[in-house]
Amino acid sequence: MSVEKHPEKRENTNFVFIGSKPLVNYVKSVLIQLDKSQESQVTIKSRGKFISKAVDVAEIVKRSPLPLNSKITIKNISTASETFKTRDKETNVSTMEITLSK
Amino acid sequence: MSVEKHPEKRENTNFVFIGSKPLVNYVKSVLIQLDKSQESQVTIKSRGKFISKAVDVAEIVKRSPLPLNSKITIKNISTASETFKTRDKETNVSTMEITLSK
Repeated sequence: MSVEKHPEKRENTNFVFIGSKPLVNYVKSVLIQLDKSQESQVTIKSRGKFISKAVDVAEIVKRSPLPLNSKITIKNISTASETFKTRDKETNVSTMEITLSK
Repeated sequence: MSVEKHPEKRENTNFVFIGSKPLVNYVKSVLIQLDKSQESQVTIKSRGKFISKAVDVAEIVKRSPLPLNSKITIKNISTASETFKTRDKETNVSTMEITLSK
């Protein structure tokens, strides 16, 4: 039993955060995590302008064949907003989570 | 009974296509369509880099109060890919549909 330092990141759920790296990096990350026998699903998290990229990653992963011949499907997509406080005003940024499962 | 020329576009479903206009234009379009008493849902369509903007529109609309005090919720989000043929190779573009209902 390992000590859980980050309670929000459970051991049976994997996250991939989309940022400014090349698209293929994130596709590989998701595929590697899905390929692990214990992991049946991966959640792609994104915010702001990276949401488009997250959808690209999900669509590419969906078309990718897994070694075990299992099919990858999009299980759930959810959106939300986060509020930032800058000096004078509040700014909202949209966030999106795409859960893929095999 | 009206003749249905476009079977995929039913009369009780409205679409808003996201493009390069300012964000507020699309927010207004969606709100106006949702405000019509007959229309209970609107689908926001987007592709490629405009997907992020579509999520922004949906999130802003979700927070907007309607005159009739009805609540707007995201009913469904779906993604897909479209394939283009350029001279030498095929290019894929991601698409997204967000259905809002009141």
